[in-house]
Amino acid sequence: MPPAISRFPVPGLKDLAPDVRERILAVQEKAGFVPNVFLALAHRPEEFRAFFAYHDALMEKEGGLSKAEREMIVVATSGANRCQYCVVAHGAILRVRARNPLIADQVAVNYLKADLAPRQRAMLDFAMKVSLAAHEVNEADYEALDKAGFSREEAWDIGAIAAFFAMSNRLANMSSMRPNDEFYLMGRVPKEKK
Amino acid sequence: MPPAISRFPVPGLKDLAPDVRERILAVQEKAGFVPNVFLALAHRPEEFRAFFAYHDALMEKEGGLSKAEREMIVVATSGANRCQYCVVAHGAILRVRARNPLIADQVAVNYLKADLAPRQRAMLDFAMKVSLAAHEVNEADYEALDKAGFSREEAWDIGAIAAFFAMSNRLANMSSMRPNDEFYLMGRVPKEKK
Amino acid sequence: MPPAISRFPVPGLKDLAPDVRERILAVQEKAGFVPNVFLALAHRPEEFRAFFAYHDALMEKEGGLSKAEREMIVVATSGANRCQYCVVAHGAILRVRARNPLIADQVAVNYLKADLAPRQRAMLDFAMKVSLAAHEVNEADYEALDKAGFSREEAWDIGAIAAFFAMSNRLANMSSMRPNDEFYLMGRVPKEKK
Amino acid sequence: MPPAISRFPVPGLKDLAPDVRERILAVQEKAGFVPNVFLALAHRPEEFRAFFAYHDALMEKEGGLSKAEREMIVVATSGANRCQYCVVAHGAILRVRARNPLIADQVAVNYLKADLAPRQRAMLDFAMKVSLAAHEVNEADYEALDKAGFSREEAWDIGAIAAFFAMSNRLANMSSMRPNDEFYLMGRVPKEKK
Amino acid sequence: MPPAISRFPVPGLKDLAPDVRERILAVQEKAGFVPNVFLALAHRPEEFRAFFAYHDALMEKEGGLSKAEREMIVVATSGANRCQYCVVAHGAILRVRARNPLIADQVAVNYLKADLAPRQRAMLDFAMKVSLAAHEVNEADYEALDKAGFSREEAWDIGAIAAFFAMSNRLANMSSMRPNDEFYLMGRVPKEKK
Amino acid sequence: MPPAISRFPVPGLKDLAPDVRERILAVQEKAGFVPNVFLALAHRPEEFRAFFAYHDALMEKEGGLSKAEREMIVVATSGANRCQYCVVAHGAILRVRARNPLIADQVAVNYLKADLAPRQRAMLDFAMKVSLAAHEVNEADYEALDKAGFSREEAWDIGAIAAFFAMSNRLANMSSMRPNDEFYLMGRVPKEKK
Repeated sequence: MPPAISRFPVPGLKDLAPDVRERILAVQEKAGFVPNVFLALAHRPEEFRAFFAYHDALMEKEGGLSKAEREMIVVATSGANRCQYCVVAHGAILRVRARNPLIADQVAVNYLKADLAPRQRAMLDFAMKVSLAAHEVNEADYEALDKAGFSREEAWDIGAIAAFFAMSNRLANMSSMRPNDEFYLMGRVPKEKK
Repeated sequence: MPPAISRFPVPGLKDLAPDVRERILAVQEKAGFVPNVFLALAHRPEEFRAFFAYHDALMEKEGGLSKAEREMIVVATSGANRCQYCVVAHGAILRVRARNPLIADQVAVNYLKADLAPRQRAMLDFAMKVSLAAHEVNEADYEALDKAGFSREEAWDIGAIAAFFAMSNRLANMSSMRPNDEFYLMGRVPKEKK
Repeated sequence: MPPAISRFPVPGLKDLAPDVRERILAVQEKAGFVPNVFLALAHRPEEFRAFFAYHDALMEKEGGLSKAEREMIVVATSGANRCQYCVVAHGAILRVRARNPLIADQVAVNYLKADLAPRQRAMLDFAMKVSLAAHEVNEADYEALDKAGFSREEAWDIGAIAAFFAMSNRLANMSSMRPNDEFYLMGRVPKEKK
Repeated sequence: MPPAISRFPVPGLKDLAPDVRERILAVQEKAGFVPNVFLALAHRPEEFRAFFAYHDALMEKEGGLSKAEREMIVVATSGANRCQYCVVAHGAILRVRARNPLIADQVAVNYLKADLAPRQRAMLDFAMKVSLAAHEVNEADYEALDKAGFSREEAWDIGAIAAFFAMSNRLANMSSMRPNDEFYLMGRVPKEKK
Repeated sequence: MPPAISRFPVPGLKDLAPDVRERILAVQEKAGFVPNVFLALAHRPEEFRAFFAYHDALMEKEGGLSKAEREMIVVATSGANRCQYCVVAHGAILRVRARNPLIADQVAVNYLKADLAPRQRAMLDFAMKVSLAAHEVNEADYEALDKAGFSREEAWDIGAIAAFFAMSNRLANMSSMRPNDEFYLMGRVPKEKK
Repeated sequence: MPPAISRFPVPGLKDLAPDVRERILAVQEKAGFVPNVFLALAHRPEEFRAFFAYHDALMEKEGGLSKAEREMIVVATSGANRCQYCVVAHGAILRVRARNPLIADQVAVNYLKADLAPRQRAMLDFAMKVSLAAHEVNEADYEALDKAGFSREEAWDIGAIAAFFAMSNRLANMSSMRPNDEFYLMGRVPKEKK
């Protein structure tokens, strides 16, 4: 028997509302498997819908931060929050999107020692502050982003992604959400070596 | 000139998409004023829609925790996260829903010394752990809820509300969201004394 | 039966030494009720006398910091120490002395986001450092106060008030001292609206 | 030129009010030197009087905790607060009162590894909680003291001493109060070896 | 130019003392590359010799903890200390020794959610306490190990490995020691899939 | 019966390997007694050899930091780690090497308030960061050492000593290693006063 993917009941695909099932089948089509977060949150369809609508508004939006940069924010803050699901799953996505097999582990353990451009370092300084000490965020933090070339709209994006995953990390940790085995190896082997 | 309600641009009502405006007018109708969180988040309509859909799924759901209990979770965790907007605004709602002019300030400062039933104390123990140390949540925490009379579905509700406001507190703190002056006095004066 | 105001025995007024009783009657005359700290500490008359002598030397002294500023220090540091009695009781006094119904809740939750003049912000930066990390206080902290317009004697006042309430918060928390219900509403309703 | 004993002005004996000077001369008579805390606090005579009245009410009271036990509380909590004046000065008094040249250094560094009777260990567990996390003090803490043989009045004493030195440590740290050189060696050499 | 492997000068193989060079060539022979810790520490030959003698005494000793268990201790405590070199390098060794491609990432992020037997969970509870709060280690901690089936000699091993890597993590972090690229993929692809 | 010097078995001198016994007899010859760390670690001869080889490489090396400065690093970081053995034993050695009866207690309690030259203050700032937050060490920390007159090789020494005692403190705390009574008085009485 495979290990549980959540402390809470996980519905079968056939028991899901059509829109929820459709979303899950679409991601399965694309990824080749269903990431467990979809199954675990399907336990609560209303929350599922809002969660992924929010997620997509932040992570799939056109323009601004690159897709890889958004995943860096997720991995760095999820590492600080010790969220296994998010570090493993988004670590995989980060490797794929950055086409870099090393960056996810570096950022998860200690972004201060990772191979980052100064722009990305400034981005993660801000994201980590929103994640860990948001009550101290002040004008100087925005000025540091400004100096690193981020617009105020991008500043919102950075902070909002950090905030969204502050929620997401807590949901995953409280439900002992289990990352799919597939994530661990994704993006680690350069194409030509496969 | 009144103080800013957010570090970010705040759209005028007339510039909003119809569904966003409608939601705002509805809350204004009910509360007598527009809570600033609606205006501040309207800066990002997609996120606005997801945020309030999520909020309502957790806070307005029928059955389970009482409405006052849900607000206790918000106030206790927002106090721990030093979020001015959420403590002041949800403190007001808590006073109204619990018909208790004292409970919000008690819970915001130190729920361990508040006038709580044992059930509510157990609820806040769990909510605070999800808010502050979710990576350590374990079976014993669920058993404590069970012993206090909460079902597993209610356990999800408690944890999910704590998680949602972990996000919400960070959004409010990063944007210096300002609570409306109206909140400070709401629910403090018993009806008969007015 | 009303809730206990202290874990320890609370003497009746008639059982008190004359000077202690007199002090209590005087405050009752002025405030319209007896703040529970007087009754709770009257359990130990010698300590009562020293506590209030010290309190008055710091809080009632002529000149220097305004009365409202002194209360800001109490409310900010008591919030950080999660002391219900001091936040609620001194929050009331702060509202009255500052003639500002909003400031106490703002300062208690997060003084970094409160409506403060730069001078008051510098004052609370110093007070919070004395309260939370006094072993790191250094010359730069005094220079920051100096730059904000405080004399060295006022610097002592700020630090000494923070230190006195470090004690006071611990006494209230260890004895589960209960704030009087009267405090919660004091200073919230502007005169003309009453 | 000897190092400063305080960041603040230190009055000369001749400039002091008679009662303050008398107190200082009495301690000099007894100890053979004037502990710097008396000179540093004499800068503020009203506070001096209240401070020492409070100190004596807790530390010189007849009955209850032994004098050595009271000093253990001071040394353990002052070590946790990294207060040089209080660790060095009260460490000396502890060695003298306990007639034990080792106990002060042990308690200052880590009371959990010190040569303590179970009663004293329970006493310091409570004192440290009041010093470091008073907002979490609860009935179980009092029951542990009860089980170790302390009355509720002694529980107050333990907590009140911890609270008083929470203030005292902050005053010493904020003013960079310097311990007299004499304290370092006091009580270290057993009588017969001198 | 490849990124630096240390903030400090790294000697060439030909400049090394014969015994140091021999050790390095032996590990290269076995692993197929020279782990950077050997080159970085070779900057200080005396320290190099003591470091690896100590390392081998703890990690290569016959009997007691399995080799995989020892690596679990390294990975868990290095994750808590945010040491990139040790998490990446020893994560690789853990995967190889446990023949488990998932365990290292799980343990590095949050051992409380990892696929561990109760024995290993108890082992890591103790190791983490030695790493993060050794001053609080007490008899109850040893009894928990005893109950999980560890002898007192194995308890020493667990604690000593945690202590050795408390040093090692700090050396790696202070020198910005860079993990070799080879480590990231090691042990991730089951033999049959290669 | 004297108190145990370790939770683990302590071998008799006659049961030791010749080289271990020789080392112990040499230190006894020099110090007049056998420091307990030698006996406690002799329980594991291989680790004993590596530990003292490492210790000597860092603490007895010619040139660079003075012997007293090296002991300051040990005492300051061991105080922060609440390690009784290291604070008491190395406090004694510091007093002797610095010919200063006050410095050890000052540095152990709070090096920020100790009688230190600016050079030594910078040295301890770096050592404490390596001890408590090595993952945040960055170029600015090295520049501060540089400005205080330390070479990069001396920077390594400072950090490596802090790292070595991070290990040593944990070994002593996990084994409840007891400092010899002799250490407490060593170096406290100036020669001429004896």
